Amino acid sequence: MTTTPGPVAHLIDEFTKLPGVGPKTAQRLTFFLLRQPIEAARGLADAIVDVKERIRFCSECFNITETDPCAICADPGRDRALICVVEEPLDVLAIERTRGYKGLYHVLGGALNPIEGIGPDDLKIDALVKRLGRTGVQEVLIATNPNMDGNYTANYLGGQLHRAYPAGLRVTRLGQGLPAGGDLEYADDITLMRALEARREM
Amino acid sequence: MTTTPGPVAHLIDEFTKLPGVGPKTAQRLTFFLLRQPIEAARGLADAIVDVKERIRFCSECFNITETDPCAICADPGRDRALICVVEEPLDVLAIERTRGYKGLYHVLGGALNPIEGIGPDDLKIDALVKRLGRTGVQEVLIATNPNMDGNYTANYLGGQLHRAYPAGLRVTRLGQGLPAGGDLEYADDITLMRALEARREM
Repeated sequence: MTTTPGPVAHLIDEFTKLPGVGPKTAQRLTFFLLRQPIEAARGLADAIVDVKERIRFCSECFNITETDPCAICADPGRDRALICVVEEPLDVLAIERTRGYKGLYHVLGGALNPIEGIGPDDLKIDALVKRLGRTGVQEVLIATNPNMDGNYTANYLGGQLHRAYPAGLRVTRLGQGLPAGGDLEYADDITLMRALEARREM
Repeated sequence: MTTTPGPVAHLIDEFTKLPGVGPKTAQRLTFFLLRQPIEAARGLADAIVDVKERIRFCSECFNITETDPCAICADPGRDRALICVVEEPLDVLAIERTRGYKGLYHVLGGALNPIEGIGPDDLKIDALVKRLGRTGVQEVLIATNPNMDGNYTANYLGGQLHRAYPAGLRVTRLGQGLPAGGDLEYADDITLMRALEARREM
């Protein structure tokens, strides 16, 4: 019995490491690339290495960026009294698309999930508490996903912030408009805009 | 409004060129790679370039291979009087897995599809006719997919072969009928019709 040549089996294997890519999809992607000109394959390979070499995390807000601090943290036109806390860089993009938010951000890098072993130390929660101590932030708007992990993270974070800053810090959460069980990055712009306007105390 | 950093947008763009990968999936793959160590990203990038640099098509059967001719064409233990014609290299692997076939192969590189503009010149049909002229092949087993394009290709190919070799060449097609493990009541009409036509003595 003849099997797949080594480099083909290896690429199929590499593709299956990606999220949502099973063996059949990995096979299809591999054979697709085999039919493409070498330049197309090299273009993809270079883009993968490039993104890792040129993109870093902002030391202030932990969003992805080519410069440190990132363009948002460095922008003098942003409202420094307001920080929006999100799970992922994609969430920053979703909120920016509404053009309805002028504050800063803080990217946690995920949500708490005790079952998967993701605890507070795995997220940029301590960094947020310390960041608030050295800046004049008046409001923290928690915009984690409106699902189980996101709500749990919001509640935990709200508790931590209230404990660290018992007075003088407003902690809010994205409000009405977000459908329960959804993902923030899939929300349409109007829904997200309304959620920004309807944020509430917690 | 802040947008995606250049290298991130570029990688998302590269991923969307892959079959079955839309903008959302491309985003997820990109942000997944951003969270991986650089070695993981490099591993994928290297595997992509590697597969293009090391894999070629066998000049005899047009299957993918690291050596030319490929391991199957070079194997003295294979039956050189029998050639199985398939659409894609994946089909060779599927037939090899049965361990029930000992002949050679011929990979067409797709199926005829007039609507998408895929004609005889886009497939290795001429190469097959010429190959049969210089080898002692007695049977060509056409194993294109049992769908519209595959059946059309099989009929066209059968006609070409009968014209080129009016006598002395057996042209066969994979048997059709009920798939193993299936339920009669769930079989589609065409499959059931073909199973009735292909009924055999027992």
